[in-house]
Amino acid sequence: MRPSGRAPDEMRAIDIITNFTKHAEGSVLVCFGDTKVLVTASVEERIPPFLKGKGEGWVTAEYSMLPRATHTRGSREAAKGKQTGRTQEIQRLIGRSLRAVTDMKKLGERQITLDCDVIQADGGTRTAAISGAWVALRLAINTLMAQGKVTEDPLTRKVAAVSCGIANGVPVLDLDYIEDSSADADANFVLIEGGHIAEVQATAEGATYDEEGLLRLLRLARIGCDRIFAAQAKAVAG
Amino acid sequence: MRPSGRAPDEMRAIDIITNFTKHAEGSVLVCFGDTKVLVTASVEERIPPFLKGKGEGWVTAEYSMLPRATHTRGSREAAKGKQTGRTQEIQRLIGRSLRAVTDMKKLGERQITLDCDVIQADGGTRTAAISGAWVALRLAINTLMAQGKVTEDPLTRKVAAVSCGIANGVPVLDLDYIEDSSADADANFVLIEGGHIAEVQATAEGATYDEEGLLRLLRLARIGCDRIFAAQAKAVAG
Amino acid sequence: MRPSGRAPDEMRAIDIITNFTKHAEGSVLVCFGDTKVLVTASVEERIPPFLKGKGEGWVTAEYSMLPRATHTRGSREAAKGKQTGRTQEIQRLIGRSLRAVTDMKKLGERQITLDCDVIQADGGTRTAAISGAWVALRLAINTLMAQGKVTEDPLTRKVAAVSCGIANGVPVLDLDYIEDSSADADANFVLIEGGHIAEVQATAEGATYDEEGLLRLLRLARIGCDRIFAAQAKAVAG
Amino acid sequence: MRPSGRAPDEMRAIDIITNFTKHAEGSVLVCFGDTKVLVTASVEERIPPFLKGKGEGWVTAEYSMLPRATHTRGSREAAKGKQTGRTQEIQRLIGRSLRAVTDMKKLGERQITLDCDVIQADGGTRTAAISGAWVALRLAINTLMAQGKVTEDPLTRKVAAVSCGIANGVPVLDLDYIEDSSADADANFVLIEGGHIAEVQATAEGATYDEEGLLRLLRLARIGCDRIFAAQAKAVAG
Amino acid sequence: MRPSGRAPDEMRAIDIITNFTKHAEGSVLVCFGDTKVLVTASVEERIPPFLKGKGEGWVTAEYSMLPRATHTRGSREAAKGKQTGRTQEIQRLIGRSLRAVTDMKKLGERQITLDCDVIQADGGTRTAAISGAWVALRLAINTLMAQGKVTEDPLTRKVAAVSCGIANGVPVLDLDYIEDSSADADANFVLIEGGHIAEVQATAEGATYDEEGLLRLLRLARIGCDRIFAAQAKAVAG
Amino acid sequence: MRPSGRAPDEMRAIDIITNFTKHAEGSVLVCFGDTKVLVTASVEERIPPFLKGKGEGWVTAEYSMLPRATHTRGSREAAKGKQTGRTQEIQRLIGRSLRAVTDMKKLGERQITLDCDVIQADGGTRTAAISGAWVALRLAINTLMAQGKVTEDPLTRKVAAVSCGIANGVPVLDLDYIEDSSADADANFVLIEGGHIAEVQATAEGATYDEEGLLRLLRLARIGCDRIFAAQAKAVAG
Repeated sequence: MRPSGRAPDEMRAIDIITNFTKHAEGSVLVCFGDTKVLVTASVEERIPPFLKGKGEGWVTAEYSMLPRATHTRGSREAAKGKQTGRTQEIQRLIGRSLRAVTDMKKLGERQITLDCDVIQADGGTRTAAISGAWVALRLAINTLMAQGKVTEDPLTRKVAAVSCGIANGVPVLDLDYIEDSSADADANFVLIEGGHIAEVQATAEGATYDEEGLLRLLRLARIGCDRIFAAQAKAVAG
Repeated sequence: MRPSGRAPDEMRAIDIITNFTKHAEGSVLVCFGDTKVLVTASVEERIPPFLKGKGEGWVTAEYSMLPRATHTRGSREAAKGKQTGRTQEIQRLIGRSLRAVTDMKKLGERQITLDCDVIQADGGTRTAAISGAWVALRLAINTLMAQGKVTEDPLTRKVAAVSCGIANGVPVLDLDYIEDSSADADANFVLIEGGHIAEVQATAEGATYDEEGLLRLLRLARIGCDRIFAAQAKAVAG
Repeated sequence: MRPSGRAPDEMRAIDIITNFTKHAEGSVLVCFGDTKVLVTASVEERIPPFLKGKGEGWVTAEYSMLPRATHTRGSREAAKGKQTGRTQEIQRLIGRSLRAVTDMKKLGERQITLDCDVIQADGGTRTAAISGAWVALRLAINTLMAQGKVTEDPLTRKVAAVSCGIANGVPVLDLDYIEDSSADADANFVLIEGGHIAEVQATAEGATYDEEGLLRLLRLARIGCDRIFAAQAKAVAG
Repeated sequence: MRPSGRAPDEMRAIDIITNFTKHAEGSVLVCFGDTKVLVTASVEERIPPFLKGKGEGWVTAEYSMLPRATHTRGSREAAKGKQTGRTQEIQRLIGRSLRAVTDMKKLGERQITLDCDVIQADGGTRTAAISGAWVALRLAINTLMAQGKVTEDPLTRKVAAVSCGIANGVPVLDLDYIEDSSADADANFVLIEGGHIAEVQATAEGATYDEEGLLRLLRLARIGCDRIFAAQAKAVAG
Repeated sequence: MRPSGRAPDEMRAIDIITNFTKHAEGSVLVCFGDTKVLVTASVEERIPPFLKGKGEGWVTAEYSMLPRATHTRGSREAAKGKQTGRTQEIQRLIGRSLRAVTDMKKLGERQITLDCDVIQADGGTRTAAISGAWVALRLAINTLMAQGKVTEDPLTRKVAAVSCGIANGVPVLDLDYIEDSSADADANFVLIEGGHIAEVQATAEGATYDEEGLLRLLRLARIGCDRIFAAQAKAVAG
Repeated sequence: MRPSGRAPDEMRAIDIITNFTKHAEGSVLVCFGDTKVLVTASVEERIPPFLKGKGEGWVTAEYSMLPRATHTRGSREAAKGKQTGRTQEIQRLIGRSLRAVTDMKKLGERQITLDCDVIQADGGTRTAAISGAWVALRLAINTLMAQGKVTEDPLTRKVAAVSCGIANGVPVLDLDYIEDSSADADANFVLIEGGHIAEVQATAEGATYDEEGLLRLLRLARIGCDRIFAAQAKAVAG
């Protein structure tokens, strides 16, 4: 039995509120249960130096946890003067995940930055961020297409992410904080609609996987991402 | 006529949603019109070094603007590796304002940090932050008193803040972004319930005040803060 | 009775030594009693990026306290690798104060930086800095006009600053360190010759003001600034 | 045909030179073909603050690329004043991988730091680093056991790592720089002797995996790690 | 003929004004011609960690150039967030020079920091700083001895420094800025009263020395330091 | 008798292995006994801003000690976020030494960076670095000349460096770590083939030199550098 009473292959409630803030070209509050992440997509008509003259755009991400998003207050990165390794690892993952489904030629010479700020954390902040970032990016690109700045859709596939783990010997989907703290293993999967894998980040400090274990987690991830793809579709249609 | 259609002495709608996040001892989302600031109050059983052995507590604040809280994206302070002068100025002001109404002996040897993160900006973020921070602090102290850790109330007076300015020659209350951008002068008042002034920060890059002008702004600030005190009382009463 | 034996509306001795150093376009050592600040005005034929193409100049300031300007040694900001919030707050105030009296169109596309380095501190370093900076700026602009680089005087009004406070219940002018340490309230006024207010920064951690108290401090500030305007005029006439 | 002429499941030459430097408790130069990493294991009789009083030790890692380890010179992180996200991601991975096979209770209250400095890079620096770090750690623990400071062996299993990828549609083992630059997908596997998975980090910016693809890469990784385990055994015996 | 009209072995006017500021235990303004450096000696009853339990004291130095001490404004190190290599090199040299004449056992467990801030630069700022720092240190130690905190004099020898160089083929003493800019070689000598050498830092980017050239510069340095020793004695005698 | 059994004027074994790494235009591992430094010379077709338009090139150096190059582990500068004063002092010395023998006009508008990374330290790392850097620079310039990018040799003289000191009252050449730790004085000489001095850095925290002492150290340095010049010639010919 899971602490939350959920079945092993059961996601938490997914809630994606679009247009949560008014200035960004795309903006959502994405909730996986009590994990709440504000994602904004900002379009800027400039590109990073390494892309000069290639006729391509760029999608990047920044991630941050508000100091009291967690049980005890963490120190503010801006006050300490640097981002932690964890923060950088996560924002690089988010950026790669979204770039995996974006056609940079079709986007054209502009940059979209996905700012993912965790308002409240209860496990799975990076997977919620990726899943919400797709919606924010979708909204921003819809705006660009409505303005005629982009003519062919650069974002034809959805991407979503979910964490899976082995808790008390049982593979489970979408760990919350309590499960995550005591789980033997923790894997984040980033999947693309249609069955492809964009990223796997599977870590076992305590326990270890074998091939069969990895596959069982991957299958749970498919179930979870299908739920998220449906929520994304509804949010965009919304 | 003001761009918003408000009368010169009319505040924007004030909304203070308590318990907006679940981990902090006190948490509010405070809205002055479209300006939205998340404030959390975090209690820690430790004090800064300069207070060691004095039997007193401390109240401090940190402030940040999410990168896309504004019309165009600003760079993230954590990524740049330092806080701007503006950020530091504002967080110092918030801290002083709340300390002005807190009895540090009664609080005892603990620190309360008020994290003010601007979700959406439309003028007056520092005044909304101070006004909301009082509610978050009140909630945190209520918790400490309910737990018996604090026995005498260290927070017997309310504090609130509002900006005033001179727009098109007319003194006006609670400037939004459009008014603020074109105002001749800008003054932030931090007032304590019962008629006292905690802070005045009046700046005139373009125009200048005279004594009468300053008093007219101060009187508008009293009207605004009375409105905020009422909203604070209602929010705490819940 | 004040610790210094001064009357409540009595300034400390004001001394403004021009051309204290030889390289800067304008340079003064300004003393308010034992508070001594070296201010240099440096003209550079470049402007900050946000002014490109506007045909305007810029005036900005930097402030620093030498490590042993104070009773006990403070750590050196350059060695720590960052400026404190207090430093940034003060240098922003100095810059705004001088910009309030400078016509940027007449200055033309150049930047003048006012470096204010506190040699010895005894209260009121920021107000002495602003008052001295006006003289340094005046000297630098005189040089530009003598060189024919500037044809119409961009600096037709004086600006000066002074601190006032309530000590032992009595409003007093130009607090020195001893008074400042025990004062109930502390207010810095930046005034423009002719009766206008450029900035008010009034803070009350311990006590609070009411409207009447604020006005009494403002009236003391007028007395003090008139003394400073006279000293500035004499220094420039020098 | 691979650019190097290797078969798809063929590793580059593995060379592990022990005691490459003389001061460290464990030291190796590990070479995977032209990729050369110097790894030192440093024992310190102190533990990080979060382990105080738990009776446990800690294993951590730091990673760096010499500026001219690569085709073109990269800027030195010490000169820029911060480590890149890539560096932090890699050193966190190395640390977790070695902790996965170390019994911290048996290690006792001491810390071992694995410094991995890339002398020459030709693809797979992180996997070479992990594989070499195990040998350096083994040597350092041998020293501690010989000194009687550690009585029960905390390191009873080997860990090794290798990269796999899909190049021209074919899954291949141990990519060198040329293959890595053009590969459709890139996956790093950290495996524990006996068949368990410690970490999987599979990324697909260009292409994507499916379940079968992931399994094929995992099977190649098993072949590669078996080769590395043999080289580690020989180096330690050596 | 030298630009200043001085003879090759002629120092600039040396002026050492004691008690230039009032808070420091020792304070001087030292002038070598137009080079003016404010040096304060601050006594703190604490020692750096590496001296814990050795019963010894420490003498250290910090150096800074005010932004407009020079012909054109240099950027402020505190604003840039780091000290230049030149600054660090100089402050390390000053510290070593003063430590060379201080008996740390007799000083006892306390630290004296010599802050050297260049008010105006015209060549030779580091040598003026060392020469003035000896006087500030002497004054601070006199205070400690008068207070009975130090009983045996830890500073029985004087130390002074001067720069020499080869200008237009002629060895010259105490270069000012104009000479320094065009000199073929530049050497700083730190000498101890009685004929000993504490430090030599001789650099030749353009030209090179031979043994005879080095000796001729050293002999000039002796002449210069004898002048400085006399000025130091007179300054302390008051 | 020296701890190493060497005669007072005897160098340690000098070993200069060329082409130690494959990407750099010049690369050597230079060993003075157990001191081992990897030096790479990187050619970049760009120049620093202050040389724009002068038709000249630039040679610069960076220096770093691997954390466990020493007896106990030192912290990594990249992780701390800044280079120590010692590091900056050394890399500035290396750069100046190599520039002293390079004709920047003949080099043309390009920059060569000499990265000196200490693999193992046993005294004299900076002098080994300078001596090895000359070989790396020579190899890089040979490459440029072979490519026809440089037509006249900009490097016609050798430069080498060695440390000397006074140990137990005896002047000795090329101190290793044990001697260096207990030596009364320490001097680094950078000499140019043919008898010229490029740099002298002589420091005496404990003891002091007189003129005769300095000359005796200089004469030892000549003996040592002659040995190094021979080793450099052999390495380049090799």
